[in-house]
Amino acid sequence: MIIDCHGHYTTAPPELGEYRERQKAELARDPDIKGTKGKITISDDQLRESLEGSQLKLQRERGTDLTIFSPRASWMGHHIGNALTSKYWTEHCNELIYRITQLYPDNFIGVCQLPQTPGTDLSNSIAELERCINDYDFVGCNLSLDPSGGFWNSPPLGDRYWYPFYEKMVELDVPAMIHVSASCNPCFHATGSHYLNADTTAFMQLMTSEITRDFPTIKFIIPHGGGAVPYHWGRFRGLADMMKLPPLDELLMNNVYFDTCVYHQPGIDLLLNVIPTKNILFASEMVGAVRGIDPETGHYFDDTRRYVENAAITQSQRAAIFADNARKVYSRLKI
Amino acid sequence: MIIDCHGHYTTAPPELGEYRERQKAELARDPDIKGTKGKITISDDQLRESLEGSQLKLQRERGTDLTIFSPRASWMGHHIGNALTSKYWTEHCNELIYRITQLYPDNFIGVCQLPQTPGTDLSNSIAELERCINDYDFVGCNLSLDPSGGFWNSPPLGDRYWYPFYEKMVELDVPAMIHVSASCNPCFHATGSHYLNADTTAFMQLMTSEITRDFPTIKFIIPHGGGAVPYHWGRFRGLADMMKLPPLDELLMNNVYFDTCVYHQPGIDLLLNVIPTKNILFASEMVGAVRGIDPETGHYFDDTRRYVENAAITQSQRAAIFADNARKVYSRLKI
Repeated sequence: MIIDCHGHYTTAPPELGEYRERQKAELARDPDIKGTKGKITISDDQLRESLEGSQLKLQRERGTDLTIFSPRASWMGHHIGNALTSKYWTEHCNELIYRITQLYPDNFIGVCQLPQTPGTDLSNSIAELERCINDYDFVGCNLSLDPSGGFWNSPPLGDRYWYPFYEKMVELDVPAMIHVSASCNPCFHATGSHYLNADTTAFMQLMTSEITRDFPTIKFIIPHGGGAVPYHWGRFRGLADMMKLPPLDELLMNNVYFDTCVYHQPGIDLLLNVIPTKNILFASEMVGAVRGIDPETGHYFDDTRRYVENAAITQSQRAAIFADNARKVYSRLKI
Repeated sequence: MIIDCHGHYTTAPPELGEYRERQKAELARDPDIKGTKGKITISDDQLRESLEGSQLKLQRERGTDLTIFSPRASWMGHHIGNALTSKYWTEHCNELIYRITQLYPDNFIGVCQLPQTPGTDLSNSIAELERCINDYDFVGCNLSLDPSGGFWNSPPLGDRYWYPFYEKMVELDVPAMIHVSASCNPCFHATGSHYLNADTTAFMQLMTSEITRDFPTIKFIIPHGGGAVPYHWGRFRGLADMMKLPPLDELLMNNVYFDTCVYHQPGIDLLLNVIPTKNILFASEMVGAVRGIDPETGHYFDDTRRYVENAAITQSQRAAIFADNARKVYSRLKI
């Protein structure tokens, strides 16, 4: 059993993007527009077609079983429009994921995006989380720590601003993957710097917060192999020491997990060597940032199963990374 | 011979900080104040005392020879005050480094900070670079890609804004270490996220620019082991492929160098395994971000010589990383 905990619906039919473009056109005329949720007409056949040649094909080819699946990260665009337009957009995106989980219950389980309009509180996000968990059997959410899209003007994760959302996560017993959306800041390339920076920043914000003391059972996944963190694990251990914090294993590693979206063997080897096995979840983010074939290996860069198979770990470690850890972290997953 | 290419003067006598506090007090009364450069009275004995128990002691203990030495990075504070106050502050900081290189010509050689006041062009920085190279025999500079201190509102490095500075670097044949200063943005911890994010961002900005085509002989050092880049080397190679760019070896690796400020053995092993030896420069940034002893090894986290000594590389690779590469990159270094 192999669970891929990080997949986005990057291959949606064009009707989804067209809806978003209509929203943007309306917002250009009136930024405060209330509008209506409206409909997106996409048939089940269109959904099947959008997946059969991509995610499902790759699941079969690579021998992975279940993808924990969420809307396209770069399209979340929390900063676009007002709280209502973001709510409508988010609901549509999550509803498409729900329909996919109904069409392919053995292949996909849902994780939701959130309508985190900057400058608003998190009540809409809490409501959407409850709706997706209770009505759609989703098992987690993607929480952005920078809903501005690269301008970094939200409070850090330790700020009390976020606490109502954490309370709901704990109540529902669901983890959050901390994942930003696309960058509108010309300094940051989305998948080459913004994502990785956000991962590193998230870890440091958690490290300098009271979150794990205030919410001892909360769970966060830091994607893309934890950004720069495992490579600089000595630096982070040393910073904890300099700041008179408890050791990282005690402070964070009962609550924080890294995925395996690292696209070469030496990176995965380092991750698996440095980070405790219990804190690593298999993932590929396939059909994502890097879709080509590595000329050095002849295999897809994002075929991360190969790297985990090739790593010098025991079979029980491999089983933990491939599935057992995900079962624990996504405790609502019934498999 | 071991050259440490990344050291900051973090142990300056209190008179330096007091000068800065007086500047800030004056700026609080009048942000446009012209003021005067003024004097900072620090004796040669004070300089010696500030180094004998720290940098020099550690050079001796760790068996490194020469430190390429620059003002304290977190104090550069390019955003503080106006262009004149920043010019005065920068000149004083660089002059202290020059005095140190005169007191200890075998132990230290200078690299300058730059008065990069946000919103101004780079003419003051060009003038200060020329002064430090021509008058003080410095061999390089620290260039910040985010002089705002964590708000990321400067043009990316590929923008023509930076080109006059690059022209001067090439003319003088000096490299720039791309190094930000402290963060004023509560999202970013300086040494735990801002520095590493800036390193990753710098690499991606270089990758998506025309710089190495427009300045084929320009040289940049990305500190802190290149941020997240070597750990995600597959991702960056794959992104270059997705973007139809030349392979990274061809596009950047005749111009970009990573230092060895990675504070644990597995991180250094990955760096030395993944990045071509010719692109790696020994460095420790000692008396810097992480000053404690690693309980797992009993040695200082930032004693990076040990990690390089322990790595599975040949003697000639080790010699290249310890000194030969630095001699090439810092071509004005006469040793």
